[in-house]
Amino acid sequence: MATTTSLAVPLRWDGSALHVLDQTRLPGEEVVLTLTGADDTAEAIWRLAVRGAPMIGIAAAYGLAMEVARTPTLPALERAAALLAGARPTARNLGWAVERVAAAARAAAPDGMVRAARAAAEAIQREDEAASRALSRHGADALDAVLPPGPVTVMTHCNAGALAASGRGTGLGVIADLAERRPVDVLACEARPLLQGARLTVWELGRLGIDHALLVDAAAPGLIRTGAVQAVVTGFDRVAANGDVANKVGTYGLALAAAAAGIPFVVAGPSSSVDLALASGDEIEIEERDASEVRAAGGALLTLPGTPCRNPAFDVTPAELVWALVTERGTARPVTRATVAGVA
Amino acid sequence: MATTTSLAVPLRWDGSALHVLDQTRLPGEEVVLTLTGADDTAEAIWRLAVRGAPMIGIAAAYGLAMEVARTPTLPALERAAALLAGARPTARNLGWAVERVAAAARAAAPDGMVRAARAAAEAIQREDEAASRALSRHGADALDAVLPPGPVTVMTHCNAGALAASGRGTGLGVIADLAERRPVDVLACEARPLLQGARLTVWELGRLGIDHALLVDAAAPGLIRTGAVQAVVTGFDRVAANGDVANKVGTYGLALAAAAAGIPFVVAGPSSSVDLALASGDEIEIEERDASEVRAAGGALLTLPGTPCRNPAFDVTPAELVWALVTERGTARPVTRATVAGVA
Repeated sequence: MATTTSLAVPLRWDGSALHVLDQTRLPGEEVVLTLTGADDTAEAIWRLAVRGAPMIGIAAAYGLAMEVARTPTLPALERAAALLAGARPTARNLGWAVERVAAAARAAAPDGMVRAARAAAEAIQREDEAASRALSRHGADALDAVLPPGPVTVMTHCNAGALAASGRGTGLGVIADLAERRPVDVLACEARPLLQGARLTVWELGRLGIDHALLVDAAAPGLIRTGAVQAVVTGFDRVAANGDVANKVGTYGLALAAAAAGIPFVVAGPSSSVDLALASGDEIEIEERDASEVRAAGGALLTLPGTPCRNPAFDVTPAELVWALVTERGTARPVTRATVAGVA
Repeated sequence: MATTTSLAVPLRWDGSALHVLDQTRLPGEEVVLTLTGADDTAEAIWRLAVRGAPMIGIAAAYGLAMEVARTPTLPALERAAALLAGARPTARNLGWAVERVAAAARAAAPDGMVRAARAAAEAIQREDEAASRALSRHGADALDAVLPPGPVTVMTHCNAGALAASGRGTGLGVIADLAERRPVDVLACEARPLLQGARLTVWELGRLGIDHALLVDAAAPGLIRTGAVQAVVTGFDRVAANGDVANKVGTYGLALAAAAAGIPFVVAGPSSSVDLALASGDEIEIEERDASEVRAAGGALLTLPGTPCRNPAFDVTPAELVWALVTERGTARPVTRATVAGVA
């Protein structure tokens, strides 16, 4: 895994290797990792150098295609697919993308495996770019139609921008689209423990020229209650058939507060994050990460060494709290089994 | 303001000076500050070396008594009282305690001012100790009567223990009392930005020998939803006549989640934190602190320098989300204007 610096986009495929911004180093440093196979790609996903549901799907797809190019055999394919799909459990895109590339490779003639896997990965990225544009427009349309005219303040959580998906992202794509139609001020939650809001969303909003302020996660529900925010928009990692949403831990508290305040709570992502095979959010596996992430921030120890911790990386928001679920296929609103199937 | 190390209790009055543990240095270091007048006491309160609604009331009372002893004149009294009462706005106890000491000094003969002020401050501390014992018992009684038999997991937020009030504190006093009756495991929210949960509550729970785990604030609502917790118990900084509760930012999100999960949400504190002069929580002034607290943790910069921030230190939980409000005078349940008046 070579490292170089500077990259115009967070993920670039050069036809044989994958270049990604190391998101663990942002916003302090812009370091580019060059990934060349399944092992280094899986490690980059596991340690969150590459993150965001759609983005880890794209990265894993290329990781598998690169591994197939290196060792074009079925056993090597299956080992690499299992490794990549198991790097993180909660987002649907990872397993979905790996399986799509693996299926293409398995279906190809032996001398066509490499080309088939690469073509599948490239299609996944291309489709995600189109999805990002379309879902951003759908989400902004839905909000623009109901928000009072004039400037609005929108809250977001974690990072659902260009670092998490193609284009301008999912939740942040919706916000950026809305900001082209009217003045938008963003309240960005920091997203402890790993601070994707403080590190990544703030960095992206600055580059987009969108006004913003950062807040601790605990402050979000209370600020929503005071009327400081007119809408909440996030991405999602996996949606069950009934519309229950798994997303970055903290999302559920925002959804409760938005419902209590009577403001729209919108989740946005590609249809590849929707999992009709799961009846409800109770069936979504929630990743629990290491206690060390809770005990420290920015390298500083925050509590007594060895303190036991709970560290779920995601939570589940029940469908009835979601005002609209947006994919590239349209807007599910209200969020029901039927409307979810329509945008999946 | 001299500093020494080690202290058996977080606040000790020696008859002429006040010795307090510097809570900004915990849990890494146990540093004792010796305070001798209004200026150093106000500064210690403002920078959170001494914190917690009842504790800052006690400290400010002694701060004023020490200043009166130094300069026993009415103009000096009024200047010091205004300085101390203005150190922080949200908790009721600060203004209440300062006014009680000031009134005692004003009412005394000129040669009795010093003694009257000191006696009032000592009475405030003595009464807070008795209040802590009584409210801890009331809160544990209320929970013990409704929780299923056997071990329970209780969530708490920020620090409402021996560092925040007399004895074993308010919210943590309730939990410690309950832990003498049945096995209790505590989930402690870290309480960003200043991490009173990670730094102070974890330290206290370790000393009390109560099992515990730390979590980021954003994880709390989702864990409540999964049934990981049977009750939520916090302190409070100010309660309005209708039962609306101002407490550490993040409390409102816990209250929403507890109500949605159908588990008890208990707030506990001395009656000196109840403010019948305010009709509702809308009238409670919420302190907004400096952006630097959000941008960093444990001395580490977490975002881009200069990032604009919102930093409310408290939020307001509406009375209808509070299962029980406990003071030394008893338990208000349900929380209504009438039951709040009964425990104020």
